[in-house]
Amino acid sequence: MLVTFVGGDRGPWRIERSEPVQGEGLAPAHRLQIFEGTEAPDDGRWSLRGATSNERYVTAIEQAELHQRSPSLGRREATKAALIPIRKTQAWWDLPQDERRSIFEDRSYHVASGLKHLPAVARRLHHGRDLDEPFDFLAWFEFAPSDSSGFEQLVAMLRKTEEWSYVEREVDLRLVRSD
Amino acid sequence: MLVTFVGGDRGPWRIERSEPVQGEGLAPAHRLQIFEGTEAPDDGRWSLRGATSNERYVTAIEQAELHQRSPSLGRREATKAALIPIRKTQAWWDLPQDERRSIFEDRSYHVASGLKHLPAVARRLHHGRDLDEPFDFLAWFEFAPSDSSGFEQLVAMLRKTEEWSYVEREVDLRLVRSD
Repeated sequence: MLVTFVGGDRGPWRIERSEPVQGEGLAPAHRLQIFEGTEAPDDGRWSLRGATSNERYVTAIEQAELHQRSPSLGRREATKAALIPIRKTQAWWDLPQDERRSIFEDRSYHVASGLKHLPAVARRLHHGRDLDEPFDFLAWFEFAPSDSSGFEQLVAMLRKTEEWSYVEREVDLRLVRSD
Repeated sequence: MLVTFVGGDRGPWRIERSEPVQGEGLAPAHRLQIFEGTEAPDDGRWSLRGATSNERYVTAIEQAELHQRSPSLGRREATKAALIPIRKTQAWWDLPQDERRSIFEDRSYHVASGLKHLPAVARRLHHGRDLDEPFDFLAWFEFAPSDSSGFEQLVAMLRKTEEWSYVEREVDLRLVRSD
């Protein structure tokens, strides 16, 4: 499923902050709309696309645990959100699958770290690389205000990993739901 | 890189045959044009898109061997080609990465079989699933007429594997270069 995130003056999510973490940031925008499907209006300040897709690294055991513990998007209490667009280096994409998996989990604990924050943080990953988008991934997270500090810990931890040494562009947007 | 294969009345490749192997075939067309990049004319009988992308299953050792032995596309003597569009089942895509890898190589010998036919057969894989295309893969092969029987053996062998039990649609097009 193709998903388009449009930053502009409309949408149920108010953008509280938008900061470049690595490389260029995004143009300022007040609100975010999310379009699930192929049609999205062209009237925003920016528009980012990604496809929900199959898992790329998880094992059967990890997948079962993730499925069991992952909450759905749109929970009433999850009024906070983060949109983290990320692009990795060509060096990352040139690595064979087994080396990417080793960096991702054996040496960066990406899944294990995420599991610690389930079911508090709902998450959906969108893949943009094959769509020629400026970002390889659009990571979307939803959580309750009381789980914000746990989410900050997760983000801070991941940014220190070996996996993140392959990130060449990253923007961090934080949002609050205000329909 | 986005690649578009357009079947119609134009192009340097003459379509010798086009057969459904599994599921629905493609509309008849005489010739094939290949567009590397985003712009392709809309005047063909059909148009299939896919992105060249990173490797999804190979190990470091396999990748090194593939790189070393793979010929480039466009060799003068490689006047024969095959375009094999494939769609796999949802059950395949729902499998975790480690199980897909096991089926792909430990039990279906996909890479090992392909390596046997290098450097005779040049190959490029295009990914269409994240683009909402009707086929998950567009596999393109080029070889000399004298290597045709080896190529037939490879295709026949792969179709008998466990991996192929997850293929729900497959078309087999054979082409000859005639500029």
